[in-house]
Amino acid sequence: MSTEKPNQPAASSMWGGRFAVGPAAIMSRINASIDFDKRLYAQDIRGSQAHCRMLVRQKILTEADGDAIVQGLEQVRQEIESGQFRFSHELEDIHMNVEARLAELIGEAAGRLHTARSRNDQVATDFRLWVRDAIDGMDGALKGLQQALITRAEEHAATVMPGFTHLQAAQPVTFGHHMLAYVEMIGRDRGRLADARVRLNECPLGSAALAGTSFPIDRHFTAAQLDFAAPMNNSLDGVSDRDFALEFMAACSICAVHLSRLAEELVIWTSAQFRFVTLSDAFTTGSSIMPQKRNPDAAELIRAKTGRVIGDLNALLIVMKGLPLAYSKDMQDDKEPVFEVADTMELSIAAMTGMIGDMKVNTLILKAAAGAGFTTATDIADWCVRELKMPFRRAHHVAGSLVKLAESKGCDIDQLSLDEMQSVEPGITEQARAVLAVDHSVASRVSFGGTAPLRVREQVAAARAKWLEGGAR
Amino acid sequence: MSTEKPNQPAASSMWGGRFAVGPAAIMSRINASIDFDKRLYAQDIRGSQAHCRMLVRQKILTEADGDAIVQGLEQVRQEIESGQFRFSHELEDIHMNVEARLAELIGEAAGRLHTARSRNDQVATDFRLWVRDAIDGMDGALKGLQQALITRAEEHAATVMPGFTHLQAAQPVTFGHHMLAYVEMIGRDRGRLADARVRLNECPLGSAALAGTSFPIDRHFTAAQLDFAAPMNNSLDGVSDRDFALEFMAACSICAVHLSRLAEELVIWTSAQFRFVTLSDAFTTGSSIMPQKRNPDAAELIRAKTGRVIGDLNALLIVMKGLPLAYSKDMQDDKEPVFEVADTMELSIAAMTGMIGDMKVNTLILKAAAGAGFTTATDIADWCVRELKMPFRRAHHVAGSLVKLAESKGCDIDQLSLDEMQSVEPGITEQARAVLAVDHSVASRVSFGGTAPLRVREQVAAARAKWLEGGAR
Amino acid sequence: MSTEKPNQPAASSMWGGRFAVGPAAIMSRINASIDFDKRLYAQDIRGSQAHCRMLVRQKILTEADGDAIVQGLEQVRQEIESGQFRFSHELEDIHMNVEARLAELIGEAAGRLHTARSRNDQVATDFRLWVRDAIDGMDGALKGLQQALITRAEEHAATVMPGFTHLQAAQPVTFGHHMLAYVEMIGRDRGRLADARVRLNECPLGSAALAGTSFPIDRHFTAAQLDFAAPMNNSLDGVSDRDFALEFMAACSICAVHLSRLAEELVIWTSAQFRFVTLSDAFTTGSSIMPQKRNPDAAELIRAKTGRVIGDLNALLIVMKGLPLAYSKDMQDDKEPVFEVADTMELSIAAMTGMIGDMKVNTLILKAAAGAGFTTATDIADWCVRELKMPFRRAHHVAGSLVKLAESKGCDIDQLSLDEMQSVEPGITEQARAVLAVDHSVASRVSFGGTAPLRVREQVAAARAKWLEGGAR
Amino acid sequence: MSTEKPNQPAASSMWGGRFAVGPAAIMSRINASIDFDKRLYAQDIRGSQAHCRMLVRQKILTEADGDAIVQGLEQVRQEIESGQFRFSHELEDIHMNVEARLAELIGEAAGRLHTARSRNDQVATDFRLWVRDAIDGMDGALKGLQQALITRAEEHAATVMPGFTHLQAAQPVTFGHHMLAYVEMIGRDRGRLADARVRLNECPLGSAALAGTSFPIDRHFTAAQLDFAAPMNNSLDGVSDRDFALEFMAACSICAVHLSRLAEELVIWTSAQFRFVTLSDAFTTGSSIMPQKRNPDAAELIRAKTGRVIGDLNALLIVMKGLPLAYSKDMQDDKEPVFEVADTMELSIAAMTGMIGDMKVNTLILKAAAGAGFTTATDIADWCVRELKMPFRRAHHVAGSLVKLAESKGCDIDQLSLDEMQSVEPGITEQARAVLAVDHSVASRVSFGGTAPLRVREQVAAARAKWLEGGAR
Repeated sequence: MSTEKPNQPAASSMWGGRFAVGPAAIMSRINASIDFDKRLYAQDIRGSQAHCRMLVRQKILTEADGDAIVQGLEQVRQEIESGQFRFSHELEDIHMNVEARLAELIGEAAGRLHTARSRNDQVATDFRLWVRDAIDGMDGALKGLQQALITRAEEHAATVMPGFTHLQAAQPVTFGHHMLAYVEMIGRDRGRLADARVRLNECPLGSAALAGTSFPIDRHFTAAQLDFAAPMNNSLDGVSDRDFALEFMAACSICAVHLSRLAEELVIWTSAQFRFVTLSDAFTTGSSIMPQKRNPDAAELIRAKTGRVIGDLNALLIVMKGLPLAYSKDMQDDKEPVFEVADTMELSIAAMTGMIGDMKVNTLILKAAAGAGFTTATDIADWCVRELKMPFRRAHHVAGSLVKLAESKGCDIDQLSLDEMQSVEPGITEQARAVLAVDHSVASRVSFGGTAPLRVREQVAAARAKWLEGGAR
Repeated sequence: MSTEKPNQPAASSMWGGRFAVGPAAIMSRINASIDFDKRLYAQDIRGSQAHCRMLVRQKILTEADGDAIVQGLEQVRQEIESGQFRFSHELEDIHMNVEARLAELIGEAAGRLHTARSRNDQVATDFRLWVRDAIDGMDGALKGLQQALITRAEEHAATVMPGFTHLQAAQPVTFGHHMLAYVEMIGRDRGRLADARVRLNECPLGSAALAGTSFPIDRHFTAAQLDFAAPMNNSLDGVSDRDFALEFMAACSICAVHLSRLAEELVIWTSAQFRFVTLSDAFTTGSSIMPQKRNPDAAELIRAKTGRVIGDLNALLIVMKGLPLAYSKDMQDDKEPVFEVADTMELSIAAMTGMIGDMKVNTLILKAAAGAGFTTATDIADWCVRELKMPFRRAHHVAGSLVKLAESKGCDIDQLSLDEMQSVEPGITEQARAVLAVDHSVASRVSFGGTAPLRVREQVAAARAKWLEGGAR
Repeated sequence: MSTEKPNQPAASSMWGGRFAVGPAAIMSRINASIDFDKRLYAQDIRGSQAHCRMLVRQKILTEADGDAIVQGLEQVRQEIESGQFRFSHELEDIHMNVEARLAELIGEAAGRLHTARSRNDQVATDFRLWVRDAIDGMDGALKGLQQALITRAEEHAATVMPGFTHLQAAQPVTFGHHMLAYVEMIGRDRGRLADARVRLNECPLGSAALAGTSFPIDRHFTAAQLDFAAPMNNSLDGVSDRDFALEFMAACSICAVHLSRLAEELVIWTSAQFRFVTLSDAFTTGSSIMPQKRNPDAAELIRAKTGRVIGDLNALLIVMKGLPLAYSKDMQDDKEPVFEVADTMELSIAAMTGMIGDMKVNTLILKAAAGAGFTTATDIADWCVRELKMPFRRAHHVAGSLVKLAESKGCDIDQLSLDEMQSVEPGITEQARAVLAVDHSVASRVSFGGTAPLRVREQVAAARAKWLEGGAR
Repeated sequence: MSTEKPNQPAASSMWGGRFAVGPAAIMSRINASIDFDKRLYAQDIRGSQAHCRMLVRQKILTEADGDAIVQGLEQVRQEIESGQFRFSHELEDIHMNVEARLAELIGEAAGRLHTARSRNDQVATDFRLWVRDAIDGMDGALKGLQQALITRAEEHAATVMPGFTHLQAAQPVTFGHHMLAYVEMIGRDRGRLADARVRLNECPLGSAALAGTSFPIDRHFTAAQLDFAAPMNNSLDGVSDRDFALEFMAACSICAVHLSRLAEELVIWTSAQFRFVTLSDAFTTGSSIMPQKRNPDAAELIRAKTGRVIGDLNALLIVMKGLPLAYSKDMQDDKEPVFEVADTMELSIAAMTGMIGDMKVNTLILKAAAGAGFTTATDIADWCVRELKMPFRRAHHVAGSLVKLAESKGCDIDQLSLDEMQSVEPGITEQARAVLAVDHSVASRVSFGGTAPLRVREQVAAARAKWLEGGAR
């Protein structure tokens, strides 16, 4: 429940206010970032404490001042987390809000904290810490999704279903194999995030406004305090690039595309015409009058949110295009897209994990669909190549003729008599007919990475070791 | 001031919550739209009242029920506008929040309001009304910006400045002429919005879920009540297309690009190297230690927000791509991008209008820059064509030789003696030298749409009549 | 057949060339536009001829020179159209290629053509002419698509099919109604193009480099010669804006989204699970071994090409962001995206028109699907409201109970006995059962814009009059 | 020189053709990919040869057939590279073109090559090989750009210039330091490409149509032959994902943004108002009449092409959104964006490398600009903190007062007398004045990553070791 009034009563009056407010109000609204950058408070305080400790260590600050600052910041953190802190628009951003409160709490010593740094390197540090945290959280969430997929893959290592190309049934595959395809995609998504994390994990603090500083600071110490691998090599670069945020959003965009594909499949698979899976009530919405209806809302929303994520990536790419060095105010528009992407991904991954975990797989329907439409015609062609030593292109022609014959008789290909089959190709034997069963078909695909239950189970074990158990990456 | 706690204490704990919450919480978060669609409350109530009046008129509803509903909705509106209304996540969206409160207020009659309609046509109607309001507000705001530009154009109809191509001085133009270029662009932006308004101004109400209804409703009446030009012709189309929102955002994207160009010019023009204009304190931020510094923050932010607007357009284009008819839940993701675009444009236009209105134009610096760099070389070439009947390509060669001569002597072209000029082209006379003055140059550009002060003043009058006074549009 | 060698033998050697070529070669490759802007040749020649006639009329050029130029340009056109013209990279662009050849053909007079204009206004004029032509072509193509849709709508005005929301069957609709939904969308697409055409139809010629000209030109005459409504009002604007191209691509993007939705439906509808329609061989690809397989390649490609079109819109929005006035070289990158969009749309619309025109609609399957899944439950609810005067929310509850009862008995709702139905709601009569038939359901949806065959036929007639016969638009 | 006729004579007739061509022609145009995928020929042949050798090794193919195929493919390659090969639209794509020609050359054995593979895994393999080659080429090109930047950084390790924030002079920095900021950015771009390469470097060959194969193939052998690290783990994933292409384009988009920033700086720096650098004739275009004019065309085009690259990334993200597994025809639209991105990046990097390498750095102008605008005010504040032990916030106030005093006297801050300075803060000594010189200022910024010449030289050495000499990466 919320009693909060909508920000703007109505679009019709929204613009009217324009004439009522003076330049100061417009500038305050366009300029202040506190409404969104307050999400950086924990990173901001942590960064300030590390900076403070370094100043003391380097004797730029006295121990007494240092202690006062570190303790004062701790109190600010508690005020924020308990909801007591009063954020002020006049103080524009989280950095000034925190520092102003610190000054109220500890007096003049607060003014020494900003020695040898600037808001430019401060915000760059805070934001890197935040994105690093978001990456870690997202990696855990994706691991959870992989776990759900692997569990279903193991259960359904031998469940046959139609494998599609062009949404037309092509060859039988196993449901477990299909689940594992997404384990691979999500694995690469985790890999992209891990690589992005390594690359962003250098510390801009100490870049100061843009040129570095003449104070005898120790950037390696601050970097280590904040679990960065090293300080960044160039102060201009430190305050002015946002490629770490772009890389994070690019990785999320690709991941969102992966999720959208699975979401689309869930939407199609739950249609009355497919009924391959049944989603749980938790992730569908019903209808008061059509109790059978389980609208796959969560899947649709995951699919939709791909747009949001890609849109946000675009937004920041466009913001950064053509900006001269070093800091420009344009870069204040970096945070909202990143926050939105992180929130959106968190929700989408959680919803997908939930759906995969508790969906019901309709194995009988899947099996019936797997065999319809001559999906094992390739198997007979392969048999001809293997046993009759035909060139593949000719074997394909034989298979095609068999299918045409079956179609003309209104039966499936494995319902043709041996005589009928031999009328097409005399070399065909009873043994050949066995390859037409869908179970036989999937069992035969034992090539590495193939759909045979045997291979699926091996891949389940390998995926578990690599993605779930390995402290791997 | 706000004591509101940040939504998520820190990124590090953000994802942790994932394991604590069950499917219901995830679904509630991904599914509920009330946090953003409450902005539609006024449109929702207005639409419901129109629908109710129509039901009474068609005798589908009794007058008593109708009165109770209309009055009850009025009370709901007041509760929302006074901040008393308690929005509920359980009720998911603004439509159910309003209807549930109506039921509390008037009892069973509330249940009759939803006769012959569905949430699908209801939300499509609300959203069209909202976008229509946003268009009207934005048109007014853009008119205000044109007014500011026209005012400055008139003041500076004869102020010369360098006209740039490739950011290299090319020919002198007048500052007024430059301002009017943006009046034209903004005029076309207003035209795009006006066209979008006409196209969206058809009413989907009565499309019901997707197929229309068997109740004897009068869609023309409802449409008229809501100031729509007509009901939409096809109920499937009515509930499932969002092209009106896309068109609005596309028009805004183009407008944002226009604003970004002017913003870029302001950033460049206020650099120490240019100093063409000085922005007022209101739209800049200073520095406690560099009092001369007026960072053009507002201009930078307007430039940046182009990214946001284009990103949002992309988001919805991507959402809508490949959605089968009719309504899919994906389409719930249509509102946030549109709201963000409308808010962003409102702010950007207001800030730009403010900056243009109170910037100081540094005419002496502009004039000095206008004459530097042989910017009137074209004028001497044109003189040769006109007076000496040279082919243009040869005249250009003459001008080039004069410039080279001046450059070798380290002087400007109009500082060459007549003898020197005649050494290049014997036909040159004293009269030719006059065309080299920047004031003469701009005054001579009297072709329609040209930069001559005479033309600029004509265009100021025409623009005023067309864009400010005319109900034109 | 083509014997053309791929531009670059292999990616591996592609970059190697970098070291072999000097700056001149790099600059030539990045700078020359002739490879793509030669597509502007017809517009360029037409524009030059109009400019030339105006110069003669204004006595800036002699009649003799004027005749030589107009004739010479005509010959250049013929050389290009017959494939004899030798395009040169050294001459960079189409304008210089044409002018250089003109000089070969007619000598010095060619040098007089460029009087009172510049490449900046020349290319702006050529490009507007090209986009205008593309709009006209696209409008005709979309009209053809509407014709195909209307024809199918008329044939299938009474063919019932399931209407979907969330890809779940919701209520029966008619196939004709579904086709007409797209007629409406395409109609608005045509409207957007028509509006864009009006807005772009002003002539930049005479803007010269950026400031206008001192020659006594008549821009109104040139504009009229080129079928523009008027000259543009501001020369800076004339040479530096490309919003007409952005608006064209934005309209195409929205249209592409519409096409992608129909394409997605065709892909789903042709799956083995749906089989709602059968595409002709012409627009599918088969498989040598699965003769029943008709991969809906054309539909998939149309769906895919939405990405290309939106990507191109983005490309130019990004190019134009933050460019100071007037012309910058960046703007040379405006043509390729526009050409690609126009080509892509042409092909997509043609393929869609072809598919719609010759697809087979499987009416029996559609009808069977229309009735499955309690799709007429809303009808019984509406009956309760209408006949029993229940509030809608309660009537919905009754319908829900009936559906649950049917589901528990494993039958469809219209297979319940009257007794069974009355056990849920005593007021139900035999008459109520009639509303449960899908034909009755669609026939009852007679509200304006509803799915009833009666309404569909009316809309067919109206659409034909508005979109096909009317010079309407 | 090219005599090739433009593809379409004119936009006006472009669409007319629509009515003249039948479905076959439309389908051929939308479906055939040979016009662009012929660029894959070398990868296709290499992949086929590897597949063939594996088939022989596994005794699926005879040695004789294997030899014939490998030799025949070699001949096809030579025909293509010598320009003799006749590409056919009827054969649709590069795979069928090559195979058909192979059949002409060696007869029936050609038909055996396609055993145990499909076009789906074939094209996935070819495309990965191509992107891998493109990454390698691009890495080399970026290394060349770093080399050019490092060279200039070393030359100008001590050249002072204004460091900007908001395009307003903020503090002096060194030109070398500025160059090195880009070395860092480009280094991360190389890192992204290197990571993408590792991730893509798994082999899909042997995935067959989608399910794997029953032939006893050795995917590890084929993978090794093609220098892949391993075969892909899942055949469905192998044929249906394109995240490797997305990741490549995302890395290129970020790199293009980096290049666009440097390009923007070059455009601004070469304006008459800045004149910080002078570009060579090779990368500028002149004007026949303004010999001083060096339009920075190459820089502008690099800036513009950011739009193209981001647009192409979007295009493929949108194509892939919501595609069910496994292969869909939509995915044929993956190649053109990737080719365009690779070509564009190649050209942009080459042009930027050229410009950086031969631009003239105007050191005197840079130094004069570095000192203007009180850019060393921070230095006096830092001095107060360091020497007078003031809290930083108060020291800033002192510096601000000094600047205001200087401004009121119309002089620079270092021109104030000691008395004047002491009137603001009595503790100020002569020593304090020394910190106001720009050379002193930059020399004092010795913090790690700071702008001091000392640090710049260290970073030059480190960058050389890391990026140019190290096989690092």
